[in-house]
Amino acid sequence: MSNNTPYKIYLEEHEIPKTWYNLRADMKEKPAPLIHPGTLQPLQFEDMQPIFCDELIRQELDNDTRDVPIPQPIMDFYRMYRPAPLVHATFLEKALDTPAKIYYKFEGNNTSGSHKLNSAIAQAYYAKEQGLKGVTTETGAGQWGTALSMACAFFDLDLKVYMVKVSYEQKPFRREVMRTYGASVTPSPSMETEIGKKINAEHPGTTGSLGCAISEAVEAATTQEGYRYVLGSVLNQVLLHQSIIGLEAHTACQKYGIEPDIIIGCAGGGSNLGGLIAPFMGEKLRGEKDYRIIAVEPASCPSFTRGRFAYDFADTGMVCPMAKMYTLGHDFIPSANHAGGLRYHGMSTILSQLYHDGYMEARTAEQTSVFEAATLFARTEGTLPAPESSHAIRAAIDEALKCRETGEEKTILFGLTGTGYFDMVAYEKFNNGEMQDYIPTDEDLAAGFATIPDIPLNA
Amino acid sequence: MSNNTPYKIYLEEHEIPKTWYNLRADMKEKPAPLIHPGTLQPLQFEDMQPIFCDELIRQELDNDTRDVPIPQPIMDFYRMYRPAPLVHATFLEKALDTPAKIYYKFEGNNTSGSHKLNSAIAQAYYAKEQGLKGVTTETGAGQWGTALSMACAFFDLDLKVYMVKVSYEQKPFRREVMRTYGASVTPSPSMETEIGKKINAEHPGTTGSLGCAISEAVEAATTQEGYRYVLGSVLNQVLLHQSIIGLEAHTACQKYGIEPDIIIGCAGGGSNLGGLIAPFMGEKLRGEKDYRIIAVEPASCPSFTRGRFAYDFADTGMVCPMAKMYTLGHDFIPSANHAGGLRYHGMSTILSQLYHDGYMEARTAEQTSVFEAATLFARTEGTLPAPESSHAIRAAIDEALKCRETGEEKTILFGLTGTGYFDMVAYEKFNNGEMQDYIPTDEDLAAGFATIPDIPLNA
Repeated sequence: MSNNTPYKIYLEEHEIPKTWYNLRADMKEKPAPLIHPGTLQPLQFEDMQPIFCDELIRQELDNDTRDVPIPQPIMDFYRMYRPAPLVHATFLEKALDTPAKIYYKFEGNNTSGSHKLNSAIAQAYYAKEQGLKGVTTETGAGQWGTALSMACAFFDLDLKVYMVKVSYEQKPFRREVMRTYGASVTPSPSMETEIGKKINAEHPGTTGSLGCAISEAVEAATTQEGYRYVLGSVLNQVLLHQSIIGLEAHTACQKYGIEPDIIIGCAGGGSNLGGLIAPFMGEKLRGEKDYRIIAVEPASCPSFTRGRFAYDFADTGMVCPMAKMYTLGHDFIPSANHAGGLRYHGMSTILSQLYHDGYMEARTAEQTSVFEAATLFARTEGTLPAPESSHAIRAAIDEALKCRETGEEKTILFGLTGTGYFDMVAYEKFNNGEMQDYIPTDEDLAAGFATIPDIPLNA
Repeated sequence: MSNNTPYKIYLEEHEIPKTWYNLRADMKEKPAPLIHPGTLQPLQFEDMQPIFCDELIRQELDNDTRDVPIPQPIMDFYRMYRPAPLVHATFLEKALDTPAKIYYKFEGNNTSGSHKLNSAIAQAYYAKEQGLKGVTTETGAGQWGTALSMACAFFDLDLKVYMVKVSYEQKPFRREVMRTYGASVTPSPSMETEIGKKINAEHPGTTGSLGCAISEAVEAATTQEGYRYVLGSVLNQVLLHQSIIGLEAHTACQKYGIEPDIIIGCAGGGSNLGGLIAPFMGEKLRGEKDYRIIAVEPASCPSFTRGRFAYDFADTGMVCPMAKMYTLGHDFIPSANHAGGLRYHGMSTILSQLYHDGYMEARTAEQTSVFEAATLFARTEGTLPAPESSHAIRAAIDEALKCRETGEEKTILFGLTGTGYFDMVAYEKFNNGEMQDYIPTDEDLAAGFATIPDIPLNA
């Protein structure tokens, strides 16, 4: 690092990228399209139109346009919390006594507390542009719902959030953030939808599930005039919007002559990882640069490392289409893991294809080791990280410790997707020594795999 | 605003002020010294030495040194979360349809969520420099305790926090943040101190009070080898450290040609207000510039606007010395107000003197109108503000609305001291329409005034 490099690199506002980068344009092997579970045919624009906003469907299907201009109202909103800093983790380096250089791209300095806002504001904008009244979505712990409520408030768009009942009751803080931004939040299963009534009748007293909440949100969107359904991860459009993370990081690296050897991101549905790595992966795909790119997933939900590359339902409730992806089976239940944002059985089709083609690595981290890393990070670098982000911290620390062994001065870049302020129940468990690790057995996995439909990979 | 002014003004790291500004140096009428309740004589260095760190006592007593160099290790820590942005609230201006220009200095982008960190890191540093093992403090809702835990983790200093029992039990999140940073957190009253045992014996089942927690923290500091007590507001030393807020704001204003007409801060003990206004007030005291400076306090705890300028105990428990200040009486209980950080019966002696001498105005805001302002701010400017900070938002909005009436293009600067992420219980009450305003009656005030000791003002 030159002496002119600040601890925190903030780009100037005029340096915020004005286009998103569509990684698919540079992929030789394109990600497989979503298919209709009945016909097994690729979904067409018309198939998706009742559910999703028009422009977002176009982005979902567009494998070719490389640079997508960011509309000015979205740029205006980005200015509220972007550029996000690229931070040189000098205090962590010192604590680890490593010759490695560690940088992190911090996406948590906004009220939603995570990178989710990058796509929420884009999706809200396109809904508004289409003249819609509002959108619906589901949320578990509430990170995505919070981001979307901020975005909808900005564009004066109605928002109905179906929140898993157990979270609605036990995690009231994020619920109230959403309500403060004007969203209506309904515990799921509710009595407002047919599917909700049915589930309540069949399972009296149920505390809900994400699959059920998705089903309710989709039903609410498709049965009310002027509404569409929006989703915060997994989809191609989401990775497109999240490319702003990587583009800013890439610009900051170029500006200060930082050349990452290793790029690390946590992986749930893929929104953060896909966004962070986008421009770097683009260089790799085009043969211009080489990087080690590492996805880190919870040992309790190991889609990449122990999953199967197959067509599977995108959701537990089987109301969504099927995607070709690394999956543990849509009925796989990743119990006992606090990183709610990483509890997804599948993975972005883009990242699945890239992993399948050998462009990236993946590894798992166990929960207690993740919270050890989180605590060290908090105490040295100041910021209390989200459990999800702390998977990337764990891997960054491990790579830096390897450098201490070998003496190599590698440059490590990782994504700090968010803050852990609403995750203190998990920290409390860790602080009290009550946190346990959970690794699914082969039998657990087999039960999940049994729910993957038998569809040829070249369907 | 020129077209070159960004929405968020971040100074360069090298522009972070390297000295704190001691406002007392420019005051013709100096703030009255703390006095000993027994002798009524001004406290000397030796009187304070058993309780406070040596260098901090020197800062407390020093009315003359204008610029105090910030030690390098504190500057290093400041780089983690400073410079803090000066934001042009264009979205709020638009929502208010006002010709006024509104700027806010945002101090909440760190894990403690407030400006408290500015003094916490300084106090921890001087304790470490003195070779102490650790420090003790009290905390109510936990904002100060959180900041101090981060600071002590950075300097590897032991921290014992006495947390009001009702908050310890009902607000576990901030407690766990403190523990994550390595602090030991004890519910107060505890059985660890003599005063705690006494209170528990006299009031079985008590849920504690801030006064009691202060008494325990002071006892713990003075009875253990290598410990001192630290405090996050009211003291002169705290206002000195907090001057970094105003210095950065002043530099940013100069850099971009912004000339505030009105400067607004919320007022509890005075740490934020005193810090924000420091360099501007200095210009006013020296006759170089004129500004309207407005303190905003809760209608439920109106120290400036309805209090008396008198010597009074700095704490409810009467273990601390007496200060000449605007006070509601040390036994005044400001019930039913959610802005925990503003529930102090007294006020910084510096600010009290300045107010007494006519250099600033004060006004009150009622709770529901404060949360209305907070909600509008969140929905337009993105950030969910702390209830304390929202008192300043309320006044800024009111001044901007006056400009809409008169057509004046005034420039308003206010302090956004922190975020409200740990205040969602209060927001929930507001969202549900269950929040009530509380204004003390003259009888309520009289009861508080009756507890003010009868000491001549020129003691």
